[in-house]
Amino acid sequence: MTYCVAMSVDSGMVFLADSRTNAGVDQINTFRKMTVYERPGERVMVLMSAGNLAISQAVVGLVRERTELGEHSLMNVATMFEAARLVGDLVREVYRRDAEALKDQGIEFNASFILGGQIGREPPRLFNIYSAGNFIEASIDTPYFQIGESKYGKPIIDRVVTRSTSLAKAAKCALISMDSTIRSNLSVGPPLDLACFKRDALRLHSHVNIDAENAYFKMVRTQWSEGLRQAFHLMPDPDWI
Amino acid sequence: MTYCVAMSVDSGMVFLADSRTNAGVDQINTFRKMTVYERPGERVMVLMSAGNLAISQAVVGLVRERTELGEHSLMNVATMFEAARLVGDLVREVYRRDAEALKDQGIEFNASFILGGQIGREPPRLFNIYSAGNFIEASIDTPYFQIGESKYGKPIIDRVVTRSTSLAKAAKCALISMDSTIRSNLSVGPPLDLACFKRDALRLHSHVNIDAENAYFKMVRTQWSEGLRQAFHLMPDPDWI
Repeated sequence: MTYCVAMSVDSGMVFLADSRTNAGVDQINTFRKMTVYERPGERVMVLMSAGNLAISQAVVGLVRERTELGEHSLMNVATMFEAARLVGDLVREVYRRDAEALKDQGIEFNASFILGGQIGREPPRLFNIYSAGNFIEASIDTPYFQIGESKYGKPIIDRVVTRSTSLAKAAKCALISMDSTIRSNLSVGPPLDLACFKRDALRLHSHVNIDAENAYFKMVRTQWSEGLRQAFHLMPDPDWI
Repeated sequence: MTYCVAMSVDSGMVFLADSRTNAGVDQINTFRKMTVYERPGERVMVLMSAGNLAISQAVVGLVRERTELGEHSLMNVATMFEAARLVGDLVREVYRRDAEALKDQGIEFNASFILGGQIGREPPRLFNIYSAGNFIEASIDTPYFQIGESKYGKPIIDRVVTRSTSLAKAAKCALISMDSTIRSNLSVGPPLDLACFKRDALRLHSHVNIDAENAYFKMVRTQWSEGLRQAFHLMPDPDWI
């Protein structure tokens, strides 16, 4: 499985993806699930994928091919809405090509994407694209999307992230959310890809590969466990037990 | 959906279940998902169920019927292993009766159970019974089981509960785990059923119905949110963002 999360806050966007894929626990591999599309000063986009790796790689491959051929691609669409529609169309293209063969083998056509970015003067926009090629957009009320193994890491985001959260705090929350997922689910694991951009900068602000030895992530893991345990022990026990 | 969790610690067992069932968000009802079987001084058992309510009620109904008829039932089995096998057999009995009719309507035969308790001098034992009627037992390494919407509330249990956790702290952790689930998933909600027994007491120690107005649960909800936010804000932000 996979866990990817993206948060859209007033000051920009944060994207975090793990890189573990597996087909059973005896076949665990590391693949990038995050792709960046950038023309500094003009556009910046981050695409993350979950689900069947062959499907998501096919979609990413089609985007690259179209870009190289100068066709309608993420590098020349005029708006983020058009970008989301394009990714949706490409998912449907892969569906037309692969779905029947997958079905013959009893494999579901299962892939989902998060696409966030900013083009020119348009405000930053964040989309969640489903395997049917349709999509939804993040709103003020729901400033984040998750794909893959999303449940373990959801409670902490629900509690701390709002639109006014700073970019650094959003990144910290994303890493805590990832840590909760990694601890509870063997199929999600480092290295992690963390990217973020500031609103109106139209370029990536940072893109870091975080392995298990990364000092900040190690600190997050230790200190969060410690903080949780402390909060737990500070809370009064039920005296009726 | 449902969320039920049971923890087996050195000093006894804690059981917590929500009571919301739903068939779509416009049809939400409250049903007990926890049943207690007790003959003080001889045996105490708690059964919790998740999944299709008709299936789990059928199983609980069969247990009651057998008890009333003086047949092989949870009130006269000699060991907890036999008790788990009996529940598994009853799940299969319901399967034989209902599965085909359900399949005709496109409904999966989906039910799972947690059964924990102590009979006589046997140590307390905790089982997770699947819809196929087979089951697993909790071990020293995994002192808890969850059924239903288990993922949201798993990280906190993984971090704080071990065999040596006190009964009161286990109950506190179960309530925090439930709170995380309720916050992230609309289909899980109060009132909650919380039961616990002390090792070798062979009777229920407490059985509390916790509604949204329960003072302790309200304190847990507020203070846990506060504690998490504090732990979050105390942790250094990534200075590279």
